[in-house]
Amino acid sequence: MTLDEAVAAQKPLVQSLLDGVAAIGADPPGITRDAYGRGENEAHDLIRKAGEALGMQASIDAGANLSLRWAADNPAAPPIIIGSHLDSIVQGGNFDGAAGVIAGIGVVAALRAAGITPRRDIEVLALRCEEAVWFGLGLIGSRCLLARLPAGALELRHARTGKTLAESIAAVGGDPAQLRQAKPLRNPAAMGAYLEVHIEQAPQLIEADAPLAICLANPGNLRHPFIRMTGEDAHTGLPHRFRRDAALAGADLSLCLEQLWLAEEAAGRPMAVTIGRFHTPADRHSLTAVSGDFEMSLDLRAYDAAHLMALEGKLQQIVADVAARRRVTITLGERSSAAPGLMDPGLMTSLADAATLCGIDAPRLHSPGTHDANNFAAAGVKTAMLLVRNQNGSHNPHEAMETDDLMAAVAVLAGVLARND
Amino acid sequence: MTLDEAVAAQKPLVQSLLDGVAAIGADPPGITRDAYGRGENEAHDLIRKAGEALGMQASIDAGANLSLRWAADNPAAPPIIIGSHLDSIVQGGNFDGAAGVIAGIGVVAALRAAGITPRRDIEVLALRCEEAVWFGLGLIGSRCLLARLPAGALELRHARTGKTLAESIAAVGGDPAQLRQAKPLRNPAAMGAYLEVHIEQAPQLIEADAPLAICLANPGNLRHPFIRMTGEDAHTGLPHRFRRDAALAGADLSLCLEQLWLAEEAAGRPMAVTIGRFHTPADRHSLTAVSGDFEMSLDLRAYDAAHLMALEGKLQQIVADVAARRRVTITLGERSSAAPGLMDPGLMTSLADAATLCGIDAPRLHSPGTHDANNFAAAGVKTAMLLVRNQNGSHNPHEAMETDDLMAAVAVLAGVLARND
Repeated sequence: MTLDEAVAAQKPLVQSLLDGVAAIGADPPGITRDAYGRGENEAHDLIRKAGEALGMQASIDAGANLSLRWAADNPAAPPIIIGSHLDSIVQGGNFDGAAGVIAGIGVVAALRAAGITPRRDIEVLALRCEEAVWFGLGLIGSRCLLARLPAGALELRHARTGKTLAESIAAVGGDPAQLRQAKPLRNPAAMGAYLEVHIEQAPQLIEADAPLAICLANPGNLRHPFIRMTGEDAHTGLPHRFRRDAALAGADLSLCLEQLWLAEEAAGRPMAVTIGRFHTPADRHSLTAVSGDFEMSLDLRAYDAAHLMALEGKLQQIVADVAARRRVTITLGERSSAAPGLMDPGLMTSLADAATLCGIDAPRLHSPGTHDANNFAAAGVKTAMLLVRNQNGSHNPHEAMETDDLMAAVAVLAGVLARND
Repeated sequence: MTLDEAVAAQKPLVQSLLDGVAAIGADPPGITRDAYGRGENEAHDLIRKAGEALGMQASIDAGANLSLRWAADNPAAPPIIIGSHLDSIVQGGNFDGAAGVIAGIGVVAALRAAGITPRRDIEVLALRCEEAVWFGLGLIGSRCLLARLPAGALELRHARTGKTLAESIAAVGGDPAQLRQAKPLRNPAAMGAYLEVHIEQAPQLIEADAPLAICLANPGNLRHPFIRMTGEDAHTGLPHRFRRDAALAGADLSLCLEQLWLAEEAAGRPMAVTIGRFHTPADRHSLTAVSGDFEMSLDLRAYDAAHLMALEGKLQQIVADVAARRRVTITLGERSSAAPGLMDPGLMTSLADAATLCGIDAPRLHSPGTHDANNFAAAGVKTAMLLVRNQNGSHNPHEAMETDDLMAAVAVLAGVLARND
């Protein structure tokens, strides 16, 4: 059986695992697999059994991440990790996360069916709690693994159960005491590579009519969750020259940031700006008063650390201009940032070569979203990602990935791993 | 005693009444005189006693408005009404409304002290519930008097007590059954004039360094309390070309309406635009999602019915342009409108002449706000208003009217009424 034939033969397995995690998460109209709860736990069980059926060895680490390892010819060589996550947001879709873990199982099954034993161990990693909805912090499994939890994270509380992160991890077999030592659970230098398959969270591949993309980079971000504008409450009849309207200042700031975005893109510097919360105070705003208060959030993302830094300078200037022009005070408030996730050029070339051999024309695209891959890249592990065509975005019940497109990703990864040295 | 001296001699009375209604409404840091409740009722009692002490005859109508009438030489001639209101918003200022009623008492006291008996009866009218906060509908006392209550208004419920308007009016001595007949409680043709003194709700007189203005017109309005924009919820990483961001559509619409406002003012057509509520949905918005939903209110005001109609056409065009440009649906929703309150040119000239005789340079200004005067003007009563200088706007605890400026209004009204035929 050729490798191509062996990959094609795994489609029923892959489909049954996709269907299996969908059944576990069923929460009409969407899918909910709650982190450290029934949804994620049962999905971990399903994947563990599938791996064990392929002869893989299961273990969990102190962060309760599930590792399934297929021993190869050269057990001393650093393993190739294929990872993603099995949790979802509340009433999200089935594929964000799960498709990547299932692709890993599919790759191992295909290599075995083709009678190929790779020269390094292949490890499928199901990382815990990637979604930020559960604790207000995302990528938790990979943060635990690579000692990248921010201070106080273990005391954050689960949005649904109210348990702390430490309690949640302990309840599923992890070891918070070890996590508190803030050391990597495994040496990143002993990881040969980290590969992640993930649905694209935008319709760029639909637009490009291609099943797969090779990820150029994952975005880093600069976030201000609680920007406040303060002007002056006023009567609806107040002439314009006297107004200090905080809501219009918010409108002005948001459109200036949109202009910045479009100008940067036009100059070949990809980025994104999202104003997610954008509101007058719900307890006081009214039809008949000019609002002296306004609040908004800002998520600004880009693919290059120097670009992010330059954007932060431009943000400061825009804020100062709007504040002066609108006679309001603007407080950016709490700030967080995350470094961009840089992909390994050699791995990108290997993926591109394998795609060509599979007859797939895979464009190179910037990932719309941030992924566990960011933490591996930041820890110095050679990292690459494949993005899979997906209609209707992610984080909603209408995610629509075709299984054949996921099989294309399995074929490319299997092609790379069949050749790996 | 000259009329000027007689007016000046009333300052202690006027000040004591201002202090009296402030004490009744004391609700630190502001003033609350709840309509049909303790605050408004006690203020009505205080004013009634002050009028009776001047020999005025007290009565209430079916809307529970208080009339204080000073019988003149010619009881058959239609009376001159000096009116305003005694309720306030919650934690508002002391002068919005009350200053106008107290000015009426001051005028009668001054004319009596000067030994002048005017040729028509002078009636001081304390109208109920002018503020829209209590029932979501303003100008209720003058609506009752002039049969301008909208359908269903008597079933509206008081924001604080939960009683219907009908119950609230009955509880203070009014007669809802008569109001349900929807006929004017008194014949507007038998009203000689309606004069109202009101603090300015903007700092135009502070800017102009003048104690008084003669009101050119009160604004009419066009209101859409619940404008909705619908785009598509999306991931923070979605490229700009795919987004249908409802919040940015709201920002775009609000700034286009501001541009319309500035262009109209530049063309000599006064108006105002207020976006009071302006928000992503509080139960769903988040830092990490593009919002597919946005909601805002619009109060658009102008001083001329034809101008308001033209503005409504421009609003429709702007909405269509923004919806197309942003690929969102915009639903203007519920609509209400109020006609502008036109002032009587002859009365305006009389007030201007009297001001000149008092040595007051009173500019002519458009009123920022709508007042009970609108209902009298709409009913065909000759109507005019004086606006009194006031710092810090109205509807807040920081209203700051100088009693001397109110005394200037008393002097001008007394001058007009001393001469009235």
